Amino acid sequence: MSGKITVVGLGPGGADLTTPAVASALAEATDLVGYVTYLDRVPAGPAGQRRHGSDNRVEVERARHALSLAAEGRTVVVVSGGDPGVFAMASAVFEAVETGDPAWRLLDIRVEPGVTAMLAAAAHAGAPLGGDFCAISLSDNLKSWATIEKRLEAAARGDFVIALYNPASKARPEQIGRAFALLQTLKAPDTIVMFVRAAGTPDVQLSIQQLGSVDASAVDMRTLVLIGSSATRTIAREGAAPWVYTPRSERAFS
Amino acid sequence: MSGKITVVGLGPGGADLTTPAVASALAEATDLVGYVTYLDRVPAGPAGQRRHGSDNRVEVERARHALSLAAEGRTVVVVSGGDPGVFAMASAVFEAVETGDPAWRLLDIRVEPGVTAMLAAAAHAGAPLGGDFCAISLSDNLKSWATIEKRLEAAARGDFVIALYNPASKARPEQIGRAFALLQTLKAPDTIVMFVRAAGTPDVQLSIQQLGSVDASAVDMRTLVLIGSSATRTIAREGAAPWVYTPRSERAFS
Repeated sequence: MSGKITVVGLGPGGADLTTPAVASALAEATDLVGYVTYLDRVPAGPAGQRRHGSDNRVEVERARHALSLAAEGRTVVVVSGGDPGVFAMASAVFEAVETGDPAWRLLDIRVEPGVTAMLAAAAHAGAPLGGDFCAISLSDNLKSWATIEKRLEAAARGDFVIALYNPASKARPEQIGRAFALLQTLKAPDTIVMFVRAAGTPDVQLSIQQLGSVDASAVDMRTLVLIGSSATRTIAREGAAPWVYTPRSERAFS
Repeated sequence: MSGKITVVGLGPGGADLTTPAVASALAEATDLVGYVTYLDRVPAGPAGQRRHGSDNRVEVERARHALSLAAEGRTVVVVSGGDPGVFAMASAVFEAVETGDPAWRLLDIRVEPGVTAMLAAAAHAGAPLGGDFCAISLSDNLKSWATIEKRLEAAARGDFVIALYNPASKARPEQIGRAFALLQTLKAPDTIVMFVRAAGTPDVQLSIQQLGSVDASAVDMRTLVLIGSSATRTIAREGAAPWVYTPRSERAFS
């Protein structure tokens, strides 16, 4: 088969966080497939380039469509935000391959990495991911809440810095509150919590709070939540938000 | 103070994974500070741009040097590989700020995110980070081996996909073996292990193994190790390495 699929991530926001490798793949594609919100961020391509926009939450169906276009010999780019391998389209494409037409296994399928949201969120706050860390999606569309609780508990017991993706949506506004209620039983009340909204864009907003008194009411799907380890610290500044960072060495301040 | 420091990550290898935001910061700098191996990857800058290369393992000293240059009014870029906030220079810069000249808190300090090695390694293998995951540095230069074991155990109990950074060096070749010995007591023998060397470069190499019979003898500092969750799967292909991915849904194949 001569068709090709490249699954890309645009990065978290502005075009200045999209890698040149992704920009090249987009410019060479005959067909772009993705959630319309992401397709709208892609600059106009060559004449004749087709765009196949879809709604959110139909990832595997979208992946099958992309694979069938590639099987016709098209050069297809599947467009995600952030990094395509982190809670995004790359897994959906491979799930569609495994469960679909065996001929799809002969396609040239590549994944181009990108800047995932937690990296941009952390950069905006300082360097909170400076130690060991983990990333958990709070969405229970695809896994049980029991699994999410098991992972939050393990992350707390391991004293990881925690990045929470998909912390809330209109359909499930209460999960971030349940997650904090659990973490409050496992971590110190002065644990630093960061809410970073629209990371990697000019509209970025940062709120720094403590776990014991955390107010998550402003959290939405554009918010990335970072929860410090026991080592995560702030540096006060005059006239500006403090910097937050996790020392590389556990012996630095102990 | 008029000086400025931007801490950047070049990405894991080729220039096509360096974001335009990082390329702009490099082009505007009067001074570049970093480990020589990373500085060698930076294209020539404007006339008069100074380069301050240093050895590895002197991160806080290097950060202080960068801060003192900025305090003189220079426009300084501190250069890391990958993402600067993930086991790299951003934390060292903030540690130097907190423990250094109080005037440094008035500097304009920014962090520009980049593509960290695990994202490029995962993209090369398929989509193994498709579920919840964690990142652990195996280096015990900066933390105790007991802390590393606590985190490996928590990561296994939480059934996270695990990315291991700094898995081995000439000075400590045995730690990856100790990590696998521990994980073998906690995870199934058929757990998928990926060794990705030189991710994000044309020299990339991938070895896919199983935890029960894993051979880590080829691991070095350029290797990123990925260890699957219980859901991580392979898709066989004729004439090529299998794709490895973690389904987004825990219900997909159970």
